[in-house]
Amino acid sequence: MKLSILRRLWDGQQEILLVFFPLLTSQEDVRLKILYCGICHTDIHFLKNDFGVSIYPLVPGHEIVGEVTEVGNKVEKFKIGDKIGVGTIVVSCRSCQNCADNLENYCPKKIPTYGFKNTDGTMTYGGFSDSMVAHEDFVVRIPDGLPLDAAAPLLCAGITVYSPLRYFGLDKPGLHLGVVGLGGLGHMAVKFAKAFGAKVTVISTSPNKKKEALENLGADSFVISTDQDQMQGVMGTMDGIIDTVSADHPLLPLLCLLKSHGKLVLVGAVTSLELPVLPLLMERRLIAGSSIGGLKETQEMIDFAAQHNVKADIEVIPMDYVNTAMERLLKADVKYRFVIDIANTLNSTS
Amino acid sequence: MKLSILRRLWDGQQEILLVFFPLLTSQEDVRLKILYCGICHTDIHFLKNDFGVSIYPLVPGHEIVGEVTEVGNKVEKFKIGDKIGVGTIVVSCRSCQNCADNLENYCPKKIPTYGFKNTDGTMTYGGFSDSMVAHEDFVVRIPDGLPLDAAAPLLCAGITVYSPLRYFGLDKPGLHLGVVGLGGLGHMAVKFAKAFGAKVTVISTSPNKKKEALENLGADSFVISTDQDQMQGVMGTMDGIIDTVSADHPLLPLLCLLKSHGKLVLVGAVTSLELPVLPLLMERRLIAGSSIGGLKETQEMIDFAAQHNVKADIEVIPMDYVNTAMERLLKADVKYRFVIDIANTLNSTS
Repeated sequence: MKLSILRRLWDGQQEILLVFFPLLTSQEDVRLKILYCGICHTDIHFLKNDFGVSIYPLVPGHEIVGEVTEVGNKVEKFKIGDKIGVGTIVVSCRSCQNCADNLENYCPKKIPTYGFKNTDGTMTYGGFSDSMVAHEDFVVRIPDGLPLDAAAPLLCAGITVYSPLRYFGLDKPGLHLGVVGLGGLGHMAVKFAKAFGAKVTVISTSPNKKKEALENLGADSFVISTDQDQMQGVMGTMDGIIDTVSADHPLLPLLCLLKSHGKLVLVGAVTSLELPVLPLLMERRLIAGSSIGGLKETQEMIDFAAQHNVKADIEVIPMDYVNTAMERLLKADVKYRFVIDIANTLNSTS
Repeated sequence: MKLSILRRLWDGQQEILLVFFPLLTSQEDVRLKILYCGICHTDIHFLKNDFGVSIYPLVPGHEIVGEVTEVGNKVEKFKIGDKIGVGTIVVSCRSCQNCADNLENYCPKKIPTYGFKNTDGTMTYGGFSDSMVAHEDFVVRIPDGLPLDAAAPLLCAGITVYSPLRYFGLDKPGLHLGVVGLGGLGHMAVKFAKAFGAKVTVISTSPNKKKEALENLGADSFVISTDQDQMQGVMGTMDGIIDTVSADHPLLPLLCLLKSHGKLVLVGAVTSLELPVLPLLMERRLIAGSSIGGLKETQEMIDFAAQHNVKADIEVIPMDYVNTAMERLLKADVKYRFVIDIANTLNSTS
């Protein structure tokens, strides 16, 4: 059991409150007092049972930053007072090839941070909570100098875009990268791509995001995906594109922006899209998917973020604003991630 | 002008005969007496103007093997009597990044071996002809020991599957590779994959190809793509798949055969397919396209084929059988490539 003293739970659309008694269940467990937790779009999917797998009561939240308050006897990496993060998974099998390769995120037996049965049959509960218990191998260290609130979204949104930039070789200075969609993931993609030394073009349907993309996020250029002249102007110029859109959208215009051998990486969860094949064949382009990252890479990402001053743009909210925040998130009305100030507001609202 | 003395041309569905006077137009040109020419499915597309770009009269054929009969003053690589091959392209710009990288096949200004305007405004004409002229940089050497007739299909079918196996890292011993479709391209994919040391599974809709695939081509296993039990049995086991099918077909069952990080490479020219996105995301799989190969790699491929005794399974036909052969090819009634015995049969039929 990896439970907490006090948690805010949702039973479908109903908010309820349960009390748990947290125990370290392994000598390698750490307990953390949760300080901040980001709100990811996945949280809404699970609250609404969009995937048909939600089990209530459910505690969302997998962008968790906190402070160590207790350590098991065999914990080696952390001590009381350390600032740590927990992301989207808390268990993996440790015996498959992906686990051996530090790719626990692709382990077929991985267990997400909330909403799934743990190995002992209890449910996992996420970060909308005052504390939690996690195995030290599924915990990362938050480096000094990284603001704890703005670090929280790195645990999901950050690693989701950092990992494919690395894996697909899109982390080299001088490349021209496109970022499609300027939400929680997209704005992190712009920042990491810039930190890697790329020229970054934001591709968006919303002209009103141009100023923000160029001035606040540091993108080099901005094109409206529905403007054929603008798209034509950057045709065949990009080495890679990170596509964060999680709704149906045409791939052909995006593929045409890529150079020969260019890579279009999808990170938005959409069911199916129409695949134009000839633009792949004629230029040896590829389309790939990617999903979060392993624990080793998550630590690497967060250390890189600290070194290069990459952090999420956030709106910090109190716990009792969370339902409103989710409604706003559904309308993309946030720049660019809500982060709940758990430590200062959970007790006061419950 | 890169023309030949005697060529067999098609004006739409009409076969006609024209006489040309071949000249070396550059001091780096070679003239070859054509010995054999394979029939590729693309030839039928061009004869029938399926792509809407055919210009008649048209001489198809881009799997050409011949013997050097004349060399320009500055030709360095070949001498009279050498056995050589000409594949799918005869000109590239030599100044773009792809040309600099020996990837002339992705040069935006490449000129196909037949059916397109050359740099001097004349048309290019292919290998259904007794001789042709080509720049030595677009000619490969056929190594001793490789049968000249069975070498011809390597120039298109062979390099089309060899190149992606190399580029996508599917050339390592011990990998498990799938080959979808057992035609001209598919049977070469099985042979090259086996030569690289892979375990090869053929995925086909035709149960009657099983014996052939296992016994004659050396595949290790065979599954019927419409048999859910058989497909289930190899789910998540493959490192890569070469998909040679050039008609609409579902990608989901193929993606599910791949391991995490597996690669599905499309080499069949189909307009568009339905792309299931979650199987890409959840396992970091990719779908790519690939189109023939550069000249350097084509030479490497043909040398590799000679060393590893990889050759096409062919049915050698006389020139006057070519229309019948094309009808049979449309019905996939050939194991696995028709090759025209040009030298012995063109004159006699014209």
